[in-house]
Amino acid sequence: MDRKDEHSKELLDQVEDLIDNNKILELRELMEEYHNRDIFDILENLDEDKQIKLFEILPIDMAASILDDADSEFFKYILSKLNTEHKANILEMMSLDDMADILADLEEDEREEVINLLNQEDAQDVKELLIYEEESAGGIMTTGYIAINKHMTAKEAISYMRENAIDAETIYYIYVIDNFEKLVGVLSLRELITSRDDSIIEDLMSENIISVYVDEDREKAVKLVSKYDLIAIPVVGRDDTLRGIITVDDVIDVIEEEASEDMYKFAGTSEQERDIIEQSNVDPKDQVISSFKARIPWLIVTLLGGLLATLILSSFDYVIDSKYFPLIYFVPIVTGMGGNIGTQVSALTVMALSNKHLDFKNVLLEGLVGVLTGIICSLILSITTYVFVKDINIVLIVSLSLFINMIIGAMLGSFVPMILKKMDADPSIVSAPLIATALDIIGMMIYFVITTIILAKIV
Amino acid sequence: MDRKDEHSKELLDQVEDLIDNNKILELRELMEEYHNRDIFDILENLDEDKQIKLFEILPIDMAASILDDADSEFFKYILSKLNTEHKANILEMMSLDDMADILADLEEDEREEVINLLNQEDAQDVKELLIYEEESAGGIMTTGYIAINKHMTAKEAISYMRENAIDAETIYYIYVIDNFEKLVGVLSLRELITSRDDSIIEDLMSENIISVYVDEDREKAVKLVSKYDLIAIPVVGRDDTLRGIITVDDVIDVIEEEASEDMYKFAGTSEQERDIIEQSNVDPKDQVISSFKARIPWLIVTLLGGLLATLILSSFDYVIDSKYFPLIYFVPIVTGMGGNIGTQVSALTVMALSNKHLDFKNVLLEGLVGVLTGIICSLILSITTYVFVKDINIVLIVSLSLFINMIIGAMLGSFVPMILKKMDADPSIVSAPLIATALDIIGMMIYFVITTIILAKIV
Repeated sequence: MDRKDEHSKELLDQVEDLIDNNKILELRELMEEYHNRDIFDILENLDEDKQIKLFEILPIDMAASILDDADSEFFKYILSKLNTEHKANILEMMSLDDMADILADLEEDEREEVINLLNQEDAQDVKELLIYEEESAGGIMTTGYIAINKHMTAKEAISYMRENAIDAETIYYIYVIDNFEKLVGVLSLRELITSRDDSIIEDLMSENIISVYVDEDREKAVKLVSKYDLIAIPVVGRDDTLRGIITVDDVIDVIEEEASEDMYKFAGTSEQERDIIEQSNVDPKDQVISSFKARIPWLIVTLLGGLLATLILSSFDYVIDSKYFPLIYFVPIVTGMGGNIGTQVSALTVMALSNKHLDFKNVLLEGLVGVLTGIICSLILSITTYVFVKDINIVLIVSLSLFINMIIGAMLGSFVPMILKKMDADPSIVSAPLIATALDIIGMMIYFVITTIILAKIV
Repeated sequence: MDRKDEHSKELLDQVEDLIDNNKILELRELMEEYHNRDIFDILENLDEDKQIKLFEILPIDMAASILDDADSEFFKYILSKLNTEHKANILEMMSLDDMADILADLEEDEREEVINLLNQEDAQDVKELLIYEEESAGGIMTTGYIAINKHMTAKEAISYMRENAIDAETIYYIYVIDNFEKLVGVLSLRELITSRDDSIIEDLMSENIISVYVDEDREKAVKLVSKYDLIAIPVVGRDDTLRGIITVDDVIDVIEEEASEDMYKFAGTSEQERDIIEQSNVDPKDQVISSFKARIPWLIVTLLGGLLATLILSSFDYVIDSKYFPLIYFVPIVTGMGGNIGTQVSALTVMALSNKHLDFKNVLLEGLVGVLTGIICSLILSITTYVFVKDINIVLIVSLSLFINMIIGAMLGSFVPMILKKMDADPSIVSAPLIATALDIIGMMIYFVITTIILAKIV
């Protein structure tokens, strides 16, 4: 048994050596021992001329499935180096959904050039796949499925499958259609092979189909596959005709992509930055530029928020001349703690909203958590403040403000994502820097009001 | 075609109605139209006595797969209400890995009671599964796989499979073992059914096996399944004997769990809170208590950090009496911006570290992004400050401090997770509130130092 993923460096040296010495046969033999995904990793780490040399000697099916995993840059580069026939052969073996995803990133004319190399049927399918939004179910589906007519017998179905299995991305579910291409049932390969030869498919199939519409959000497909533990889910048009399937490996890719997307948004940056950084061989210059571009808008927004906070703080000047000037030293802690609990709550609310429905009762519950944590924290703060400052009015102002800020931070952290969701906006635009800055401003105003009220009473 | 997931409220009413009127037959017929997962959702929303009434009339296989999805509370409750024979029948049909996960959450004596109801083979398997750590590959594997001997013919293998398919969680990969139970190859069902009857398995199988060791981190299994687009991955002992398999649906569960775990940690709370909140029917009191417990440690840590910031700020008192007292109003913006960029960078670094290796060059790159964003932000700040304050020294101190803080925020946000990883600690303990508080303190010290230096030169 091999555990090859651990020896990639050694392997890379070996491959480079074989290429340098032009040992084509040995190289091909070596490659056949590896998974396409491993060869893809090797290719990524080779120089351009060696990449081509290695790619050219690969069997067609291997070359095709390596291009399935490639990004548009690599795809374009490789195709530009191959002769037309070899190119057409490889393209014919590629997975159509992966090809459509790559083509979507190319220029119009480059796309046309590739589509012209395809046979008519594939060209038609790819063009159809290109229509759908990237974020829709249609955008991640493939047309490589097996559909059989409900009037077939089990024997006919098995022989049909044997003929067509090679083009299918999964043969483990068989989709059953009527004469009008409408999806009417589903059958597992397991059920098919264990049934009698003359059974009619219609009697074997289950009519209880879990499916998504082609124009629905891809998240819907992900949720159903995850909930019902499916290996693939059929995609239908609004007229119930079968259009494609989404396989579990694409679902995993979406889950991983969306998870990191949430985190990026919460950190206050964008998908563009992620797309650059998560590439395996990223040019440091590109990385710095993409990071700069993705982050600067958020930083400017928070900077302007910070300026507003400064402006509010400067109206505090009347305490400067009084014996209460130490109040100003507590601004960071009083406002910061509101931001901290607000960050916690908003992250949790954004996550919870993506999985289930929350009503506004949740804002009250979070407020209650704010009260409990606020009691503990303001108790700690009041004791330490008293030890250092020994002025009961300052202690009162500081700890009361902290307490109220923590409650408001908790409630706002829950309220804002929920109201965004209610307004059909994306709750995850509430990023940590944004909520922290907003609560800085609000916190300062609260501190200011409480100070004014209490000082007015005593001064 | 049904899209049943959208009518759950109606369905629930219908089920309650049928139970109330004791229409057993109609109820059973209705349930047979639904997936186990939908019935589980219905059960969760019924009162306890109706839960039992519905559960009792379900076919054994449906009841078993509903318990597969249940948590230990529900499992215990349901079993306590059934007679011994019905109980044993259901347990026999359960998936062993799910049963082991549930049993792990029960008390010793409750666990024994359940295991005693199992047949000897299942009892043995479950006891073995219970040994493995939850976070290991063994902790998420199942023993419901099909293994055939390499000396079998294709025909023998197919008939063996037909007999044993019912116990298997997936029949799409067939694992090939030698006479010593060592995993020596893998074969897809597709390859098996398309081969000649008298072919020997050893000649059909692929020896290029992707597998994990039973004591490895489950993350390893997740990465391999995701990378190689597998439907299942075999789990072997250090002696290469086949111990179990991990199926893709369990991999999806782990990915979703880990993604929300990262977000929870980054928000500054804990898994315990997530486990409570993500339950579908959570008692509000439990939710508030668990949230309080999970968040208060982090809040106290940041509160203490805030106190330190206050202490540093109070040594700023010498500016209070000078014409430079407006400097104090810029404390929140100067420190806050360092925290904002630090939060961005730390979130991205934590995520990047989970996917690839980063070297310390990354800290420099992030520092460079800090320089670029710092130039823009301090330019904006210096202009606005000049408009309001019209003192060139204040402008200089404020914008220089902001600039340096942003560079340090960026570099520290990258450095801290990386050094944690180097020390084999978990980089994701760097939460947003923690990094914001740390950078508040550091930022204030920088502001303080720069103020002192510049004022010393001019005053």
